[in-house]
Amino acid sequence: MTVQRILIVSGTHGNEINPVWAVKQFNREENSLKHGIEYEYIIGNPVAYEKGCRYIDVDLNRSFKESENCDQQKNSFYETNRANFLLDEFGIDGSKPCQIVIDLHTTTANMGTSIVLYGRRFKDFCLAALLQNKFGLPIYLHEKDKAQTGFLVEAWPCGLVIEIGAVAQNFYDPKIIDRFSLIISSLREEIDKLKNNLIELPKELVVYVHQGSIDYPRDKKGVIDGLIHPERINQDWKMIKKGDPLFLDSQGIVHKYDGDQLIWPVFIGEVAYKEKNIAMSYTKKEVICSKKQWVQDFESL
Amino acid sequence: MTVQRILIVSGTHGNEINPVWAVKQFNREENSLKHGIEYEYIIGNPVAYEKGCRYIDVDLNRSFKESENCDQQKNSFYETNRANFLLDEFGIDGSKPCQIVIDLHTTTANMGTSIVLYGRRFKDFCLAALLQNKFGLPIYLHEKDKAQTGFLVEAWPCGLVIEIGAVAQNFYDPKIIDRFSLIISSLREEIDKLKNNLIELPKELVVYVHQGSIDYPRDKKGVIDGLIHPERINQDWKMIKKGDPLFLDSQGIVHKYDGDQLIWPVFIGEVAYKEKNIAMSYTKKEVICSKKQWVQDFESL
Repeated sequence: MTVQRILIVSGTHGNEINPVWAVKQFNREENSLKHGIEYEYIIGNPVAYEKGCRYIDVDLNRSFKESENCDQQKNSFYETNRANFLLDEFGIDGSKPCQIVIDLHTTTANMGTSIVLYGRRFKDFCLAALLQNKFGLPIYLHEKDKAQTGFLVEAWPCGLVIEIGAVAQNFYDPKIIDRFSLIISSLREEIDKLKNNLIELPKELVVYVHQGSIDYPRDKKGVIDGLIHPERINQDWKMIKKGDPLFLDSQGIVHKYDGDQLIWPVFIGEVAYKEKNIAMSYTKKEVICSKKQWVQDFESL
Repeated sequence: MTVQRILIVSGTHGNEINPVWAVKQFNREENSLKHGIEYEYIIGNPVAYEKGCRYIDVDLNRSFKESENCDQQKNSFYETNRANFLLDEFGIDGSKPCQIVIDLHTTTANMGTSIVLYGRRFKDFCLAALLQNKFGLPIYLHEKDKAQTGFLVEAWPCGLVIEIGAVAQNFYDPKIIDRFSLIISSLREEIDKLKNNLIELPKELVVYVHQGSIDYPRDKKGVIDGLIHPERINQDWKMIKKGDPLFLDSQGIVHKYDGDQLIWPVFIGEVAYKEKNIAMSYTKKEVICSKKQWVQDFESL
């Protein structure tokens, strides 16, 4: 295995402060070098973090698009430049090349401790399977969504997002910090075991595959005119079938799910997604049989 | 009793969305006229509410300052104009004069359902005593704080703030909405009883009187470099004595309370107060014997 350097990013969104503090504590207590692997800890969006906002110009976690980042106009965006800097510094062809990136996020939705994968890279599956096996974490597999691209972890050969909630933006919660610390140290352990061939993959990986997103009810002016239904709020990962309530509008009318497919919702009511016209995303559940190739791909990193 | 019209304001801060929805539901189910009292329901800062932000230019709930609101420069602020509009419309000398105002707020701090009073007006004491008697609500009495002035309720002859938390900004929480609905309907009941002389004040009012505020530890650049201590977070209203932990900084050092007085903290870690350099405010507990004059003053409204 050739993994030599791993990048841990916190504060990719400046108002998600708990991972930043988890990393600060962790960085103080642990060595950056462990079993021959060097760990780099960095704040993704330090300017937004200092200001306590999600981003300055555009969402950093949608700014890793190769074609656009050479665009003159977009180059005036702080986050476009920051994305280029992170790649120049820590990208696989950067000055301190990292083979793996872990991007730490929080959500106001009741997602618990969860993993987000982008696409179906075997290397990511390998890492995610180890964490799911150890903690039973649910995995949101984001793919084929043309409206949402340019995620940070996609710009590295291997990477995943750890997403923990519910916690308010800019609100420090020691329990959330503890959960991040546990995940970071476990990841380091699992990667060490992988490096020493001491690990066996679980037989299967359970993933929730992105299918689409649902907007809030809106009035004629386009203003949100409905809320997540009381029976739906905080029920992330819980199956929805036809006729189940989704929203309650200002007239007291219940908006129900009208599809025939069973769906599993994620990021229900996430505050930051209002600007993206997303009240929740929905997924289908899929079980993927694990393959030796996953470990081989990981080892070839 | 001459109370004829009562103003219920929600969304004074645009990102505190739960009271807005409580009022929408309430407004749909109840008549605006009850026992000869007319209720006016209004969104304090509708533009900020639509944008999902706290305010556009300045904090509306610090914008009710008579002297400043004639100031040319400040008059270009949206909130200064909005404050003037609210007073022209619903102020005691406005076109639809309201004698009482109730301003509904949420907080990211774990304040529970609480009342905030500004100064020691007997009319406010009367109303607050009834609510405290009915629900045992804690009362934060804000006074003598030159850094924080121009609160909305101060611009009416009688008024109080209902402050409920913890809930994230812009996050809809049905339990919080239910709590607001309960308070609004109870207030209406209590005011009806007062009007019909069917009420007796409790013997005393317990208040937590504002003494000052404490900022976060900061580094040399002025950036926050410490968090509310895990033993302190969410412990609003719980007494602090000398030596009790307040903050944990990035070096792992515990910052302790060093004063000799016992204090009771409020708004611990409130996200919106970071920009005001407030990590928490602190109070002293005071028991005020109730007086008949309170009811008389209220009746003279």
